[in-house]
Amino acid sequence: MRCEIVAIGTELLLGQIVDTNSAWLAERLATLGVDGYFQTRVGDNPARIEEALRQALARSDVVIVCGGLGPTQDDITRQAIANVMGAPLQRDPTLLARIETIFRQRNRPFADNNATQADVPVGARPMAMIAGTAPGLICQVGEKHIYALPGVPWEMRALFEADVLPDLLQRRAQFGDAEATLVNHTLYCWGPGESAIAARLTPRLQALDASGNPTIAFLASDIAGTRVRITAKAADAEEARRMAQEEAREVRALLGDAVFSEGDDAPMLHLPEAVVLRLLAERGQTLAIAESLTGGGIGARLTSIAGASRVFRGGIVAYADDVKFESLSVPPGPVVSEETAEHMARNVCRVLRADVGLAATGVAGPDSQEGLPPGTVCIAVAWKNETTTRTLNLGGRPREQVRILTATWLFDMLRRKIMDLPVA
Amino acid sequence: MRCEIVAIGTELLLGQIVDTNSAWLAERLATLGVDGYFQTRVGDNPARIEEALRQALARSDVVIVCGGLGPTQDDITRQAIANVMGAPLQRDPTLLARIETIFRQRNRPFADNNATQADVPVGARPMAMIAGTAPGLICQVGEKHIYALPGVPWEMRALFEADVLPDLLQRRAQFGDAEATLVNHTLYCWGPGESAIAARLTPRLQALDASGNPTIAFLASDIAGTRVRITAKAADAEEARRMAQEEAREVRALLGDAVFSEGDDAPMLHLPEAVVLRLLAERGQTLAIAESLTGGGIGARLTSIAGASRVFRGGIVAYADDVKFESLSVPPGPVVSEETAEHMARNVCRVLRADVGLAATGVAGPDSQEGLPPGTVCIAVAWKNETTTRTLNLGGRPREQVRILTATWLFDMLRRKIMDLPVA
Repeated sequence: MRCEIVAIGTELLLGQIVDTNSAWLAERLATLGVDGYFQTRVGDNPARIEEALRQALARSDVVIVCGGLGPTQDDITRQAIANVMGAPLQRDPTLLARIETIFRQRNRPFADNNATQADVPVGARPMAMIAGTAPGLICQVGEKHIYALPGVPWEMRALFEADVLPDLLQRRAQFGDAEATLVNHTLYCWGPGESAIAARLTPRLQALDASGNPTIAFLASDIAGTRVRITAKAADAEEARRMAQEEAREVRALLGDAVFSEGDDAPMLHLPEAVVLRLLAERGQTLAIAESLTGGGIGARLTSIAGASRVFRGGIVAYADDVKFESLSVPPGPVVSEETAEHMARNVCRVLRADVGLAATGVAGPDSQEGLPPGTVCIAVAWKNETTTRTLNLGGRPREQVRILTATWLFDMLRRKIMDLPVA
Repeated sequence: MRCEIVAIGTELLLGQIVDTNSAWLAERLATLGVDGYFQTRVGDNPARIEEALRQALARSDVVIVCGGLGPTQDDITRQAIANVMGAPLQRDPTLLARIETIFRQRNRPFADNNATQADVPVGARPMAMIAGTAPGLICQVGEKHIYALPGVPWEMRALFEADVLPDLLQRRAQFGDAEATLVNHTLYCWGPGESAIAARLTPRLQALDASGNPTIAFLASDIAGTRVRITAKAADAEEARRMAQEEAREVRALLGDAVFSEGDDAPMLHLPEAVVLRLLAERGQTLAIAESLTGGGIGARLTSIAGASRVFRGGIVAYADDVKFESLSVPPGPVVSEETAEHMARNVCRVLRADVGLAATGVAGPDSQEGLPPGTVCIAVAWKNETTTRTLNLGGRPREQVRILTATWLFDMLRRKIMDLPVA
């Protein structure tokens, strides 16, 4: 079964919005072993949307189309699908009532143009779930199917999981494809950079070169770490999983304590912040953070993880220097130093009554500060009555990258302290 | 002059990484009036990369290719370009020395495989600037040109601006194209939702329907606001700008105080956080924030804006309830209320000695809290000895969206207080 993704929106072609939907769908489909798919982007133009849909139906079995289901004049997907189906659009009164109820529940005025979101091509059916206000559609065209999803990423994903995925799996079973299954197993690393990690894995890359299965790929990320992705392909999921695990053992042996997490489940579970929260929760420890250049970003990352409240008590963002002196008892003077970071980490524990403290103070850039170049960042971990500090050299990067990397290095330093691993 | 974008990386096709580069490049090219371009994505496969490049060169005049310039075995762009040029790869000693110096300056070990990044197809030249460690390349193939850029977004953008753009503009002049110029003028709005805003602009959409120039498009964003983008096309930039400004006047009249910023320059300057920092800086006021469900995210947004330190003193992230009671003098009891938000906003001003305070307390979800449903958020602005509070109903959205929206609503409430506009 071949699946094609069509992303609709002039803002995509003009680059005003990034097409995250195609990537997300591609990953979900790849995990299901649905390969041989195409990806197209088209603007808010009726003729070109129709052409894209017809082209997709000609060469694929199912088409997933995202975007153009909103209430504005630019939203033409419904009409384009109706044209392709050779059917009229009909306002569905039950669907209309559901949408009106949603607006009422959220205390939002129902504009006339919102009623168009209840228009359905005759012969198509709306999806059971409504995430935002735009209902998705499942449309049969001959032997083929179009799934129309909203363009808003969180709405699209919710509807895909709830309505499209079950339908797709059913359809694939009907195809009787002897689908190969792809299984991914990813190891998440921090410490050595991407090229150093690739160099350590040269023996494995050479060993796998002949068979080409499993494959190993590297994905560098300042937030998630360097990801080493092992992909195994086999006739069934069990065999693919076995192959992936066997290779993971070999890789793990070569990477040692650079690996901070691994698995073949949702990447969010393997974020450095998720890992340290789990380690602290297991040990019944609470956490407080003292921030400066990061402005609150470290706390924001921690609190994006479900269950953070079991561990995270809060933080002090001491952006102005005198806030460090007054609220964190830092001795007055230059603030970009390991001593300052140590005071910040220890004192935020005391002020917020937490077991463990993290702190960062440094020069995000682009200007120098206290005679120190951008990228000079001092971090500290107060753990079990002992404070460990370190100076990072994050130069040559834009301000946002310095702030992001500060958090990831701090999480990794905490992980190493908890696991009794060497820090530098 | 036709320009094609080729994005390289198996992780793109598998959806593991989102292709932000194509979108960014597309926007830059569109602003330059370079249309008629194609976008392709291809995996780390030598044969398919070569095929994509040859296809691009057949139908376009310049090709911008991103990715595959790293040091690992997956990085095959250099070789593919060399094959297309019919030339060998040659290690450039000057370039090698530059890369080694960069590694030394950043205190990073130089792995053997990093030397491959100094390989250049004979006849091509490296770009003058190096952002990360992967040098870009400018490669002539007959009458056409390939620009090879790193896949890491910030590196790609830096090299595009420094080296590719000037070269592209020169090349376009040689084409003697009577290029049309596109000018965008965007109004950024908050308060009414996207459909309400589109409804208010119906008279303009009808008025512009016949000519189709300028066009008006809507882009909804929980972070940046609902953007109303006016796009005018004319033979020269002056005329296009005049047309866009004229339409902006009409649109502004219909949208009133929903418009919090506008312009045709970098969107980052028009973020709600940038707007409130500018307004406070103009008035010589300082700001402190008290966060809870947002975990530090409000401060992180504020401090991503250059010059935030003129205004922002810091904040207290009172994630655990008793931190609210102790550090922000909130009366013990339920914390999701407008009274609590008021205490938080006023007291963070006192504790951090700031003129203006912002606060948010609420239920991010997915669980209820204190009998209140997810999305119930109370926000407060302490401005000029007066505290204004409001309860938001952000239900029906995932946790991250509730946190993001809380910040944007809080910035908008502050903007309205400063500008003496109605809040609700």
